[in-house]
Amino acid sequence: MPANDLEVYAKQSFGGRIGIGRSPALLIVDFTKGFADPAVFGGGNIPDAVRQTVPVLAKARQLGMPVIHTKIIYAEDGADAGIHCLKSRRLKTLTRSNPQSDFVTELMPVAGELVIEKRLPSAFFESGLAGILHARGIDTLLIAGCTTSGCVRASTLDAMCHGFRPIVLTDCVGDRALGPHEANLFDLGQKYADLMPSHAALEEAASRFATEA
Amino acid sequence: MPANDLEVYAKQSFGGRIGIGRSPALLIVDFTKGFADPAVFGGGNIPDAVRQTVPVLAKARQLGMPVIHTKIIYAEDGADAGIHCLKSRRLKTLTRSNPQSDFVTELMPVAGELVIEKRLPSAFFESGLAGILHARGIDTLLIAGCTTSGCVRASTLDAMCHGFRPIVLTDCVGDRALGPHEANLFDLGQKYADLMPSHAALEEAASRFATEA
Amino acid sequence: MPANDLEVYAKQSFGGRIGIGRSPALLIVDFTKGFADPAVFGGGNIPDAVRQTVPVLAKARQLGMPVIHTKIIYAEDGADAGIHCLKSRRLKTLTRSNPQSDFVTELMPVAGELVIEKRLPSAFFESGLAGILHARGIDTLLIAGCTTSGCVRASTLDAMCHGFRPIVLTDCVGDRALGPHEANLFDLGQKYADLMPSHAALEEAASRFATEA
Amino acid sequence: MPANDLEVYAKQSFGGRIGIGRSPALLIVDFTKGFADPAVFGGGNIPDAVRQTVPVLAKARQLGMPVIHTKIIYAEDGADAGIHCLKSRRLKTLTRSNPQSDFVTELMPVAGELVIEKRLPSAFFESGLAGILHARGIDTLLIAGCTTSGCVRASTLDAMCHGFRPIVLTDCVGDRALGPHEANLFDLGQKYADLMPSHAALEEAASRFATEA
Repeated sequence: MPANDLEVYAKQSFGGRIGIGRSPALLIVDFTKGFADPAVFGGGNIPDAVRQTVPVLAKARQLGMPVIHTKIIYAEDGADAGIHCLKSRRLKTLTRSNPQSDFVTELMPVAGELVIEKRLPSAFFESGLAGILHARGIDTLLIAGCTTSGCVRASTLDAMCHGFRPIVLTDCVGDRALGPHEANLFDLGQKYADLMPSHAALEEAASRFATEA
Repeated sequence: MPANDLEVYAKQSFGGRIGIGRSPALLIVDFTKGFADPAVFGGGNIPDAVRQTVPVLAKARQLGMPVIHTKIIYAEDGADAGIHCLKSRRLKTLTRSNPQSDFVTELMPVAGELVIEKRLPSAFFESGLAGILHARGIDTLLIAGCTTSGCVRASTLDAMCHGFRPIVLTDCVGDRALGPHEANLFDLGQKYADLMPSHAALEEAASRFATEA
Repeated sequence: MPANDLEVYAKQSFGGRIGIGRSPALLIVDFTKGFADPAVFGGGNIPDAVRQTVPVLAKARQLGMPVIHTKIIYAEDGADAGIHCLKSRRLKTLTRSNPQSDFVTELMPVAGELVIEKRLPSAFFESGLAGILHARGIDTLLIAGCTTSGCVRASTLDAMCHGFRPIVLTDCVGDRALGPHEANLFDLGQKYADLMPSHAALEEAASRFATEA
Repeated sequence: MPANDLEVYAKQSFGGRIGIGRSPALLIVDFTKGFADPAVFGGGNIPDAVRQTVPVLAKARQLGMPVIHTKIIYAEDGADAGIHCLKSRRLKTLTRSNPQSDFVTELMPVAGELVIEKRLPSAFFESGLAGILHARGIDTLLIAGCTTSGCVRASTLDAMCHGFRPIVLTDCVGDRALGPHEANLFDLGQKYADLMPSHAALEEAASRFATEA
């Protein structure tokens, strides 16, 4: 991005800092087999993002940080397919019986972790997730997943709109193409979320749990 | 975008066509004085987008196509400011008494046109807009406004999620910087909306009204 | 209700008529084994309502009227239980593996009918249902199910708020106790929905399909 | 209600206790001139509820407890009227310029208190309120207002669904007719909220503020 464009954002007051609140959780968006497979919906730097999320998930579990996993699930008979399936007709093949809907092996949920099934990009759009998290007092979401330009961006925007503090873990999000990945990280960082590498975010978030340990 | 990236999108079934439904409306997002002014939130190609929306609005009115205008309005005392105002602290100055919140002179609403006041990027996020439009049988939204990477993108995504057919009028949307403008048009066209120049969209939409004239 | 109370409602303009629109669907709320069983969540006139819904479902299928079935489903490990489960702690036992979550035998969905899993009373609250129905052009819901004072009322109210025309089928809704059943029918009829016996609603709705047959 | 009906509710696990959380706020629903006036939308025990809310509001302010006021506001030209206005055609007269939309004199908001304008019964339906409150860490709502069978019930249900702990202040809610008032208090207390007289709720809630004083 040209330097004078960046100046425009700064002058117009964008790029402020949100910060990590007192009760963070880890949100892992759509790291399923289909989104990790370049022949289906994957490619680009998604495999790197998956690999770099493995230690983040391990650390979150060690801290007792709540974890949420999301996946796209459509009805087997396509009865719930909507406008999005006109834009990408293969989406509605992501049914419960389709192995591509399964989480990648290295990031499988364990008992007690929340699994949200959704039909649309945002983890929050009509999924009930906001109410569940608020009932638990969670105020901050560390966000990993894919794709940066799709479900991660939509989930991050909605997290902010629902009153959460969204922190995008820059090394733990990926996209099928690097141009959209970079462009969306820019938008997110300027307008909707803090961008942090996972090690820095976890280090700060850990302090929220230490006092209770 | 590299040619082989575009191939990835095509192979993965993105970029399908949604089409204009039987009952379109025109949605004009945030064309207010503050977003037209480079010293506030404007700049880039927003003035062009405003100018090119003028004949579109005139044509919509001539056809009897419903029109919706949105603007950001925060409480005078800042009581309703949320996380978004941490990222862009100047947003909450957009109150009813601030002239920057007024629509630009050339695109003022007339009686009978819907004006939606919102606090967040999406015209649909908790604004009541979806229900109002559905009650009237509107199924398609021709979308103009700014910014492409902000309120236009968020509104377009949510339009799709709420079951509308979103058509982004490529010459009637603008942003403070051209990089984000182009990058977001790409995402929108691949995943959430049809991209059409305004003359083509209006020509097709007009046929939906002609039969009743 | 005292006659002079009814006069108050009439004088204050309540009790207007909404009417059946051009594209109705049948919404069957929570007619599952657990809500039909007096030892679980059932009792009262729910068995009557189930029995009287059988011919309504048959007729809807014959007409080609879209059908939606809802049920409550919580995660097996209780990870998605919220505030509602404090008020009724047994709710979270309604998991996919619990036979009480199955639809009653006489009202099982068939392929192509929409099945909505929800955690909360309203069929619409964060379930994605509104967007799916709007994408199909559905504007009216004939509503059967249970309980009148719980999930039926909440679904009817939200149907109205999302821009649908709600028609409560008075003989096809039931509750575990008759007092709340009657009190809620009163509220619904005065403020949020038209009350119609199923035969009258189906007769009128049928005309919307006849023209296409 | 017959004693054996109450037994049914108890046996089926209803009527559990939610409790006041760590961060309560006071939500005053639609105590406007029009809803206090028996010639418009008022009557019944609404005047009592208004009077009994006066000391509650005073105490909340003294404690520093956040306060939210809601009112119904439709566009002057009726452009945003939906299905609800078919059921009660007078609703859409509640515009900003109509004095009946003003709050009653004894319960006027002061600077810093949140005022939510809404078109529909629930204070939460597409009003943005949930996100604003969650961003402030509020987890509990003490609820006053009118009508018990209308906007109070809808707001209480949605408060629960959005993850808040709803506490209905039994002496501070009212309705135009006593039958619906009582019937809805029953439903709310069994299924969606704790019922408490205002003095008891304030006494308990006050302890959440004392530690910070």
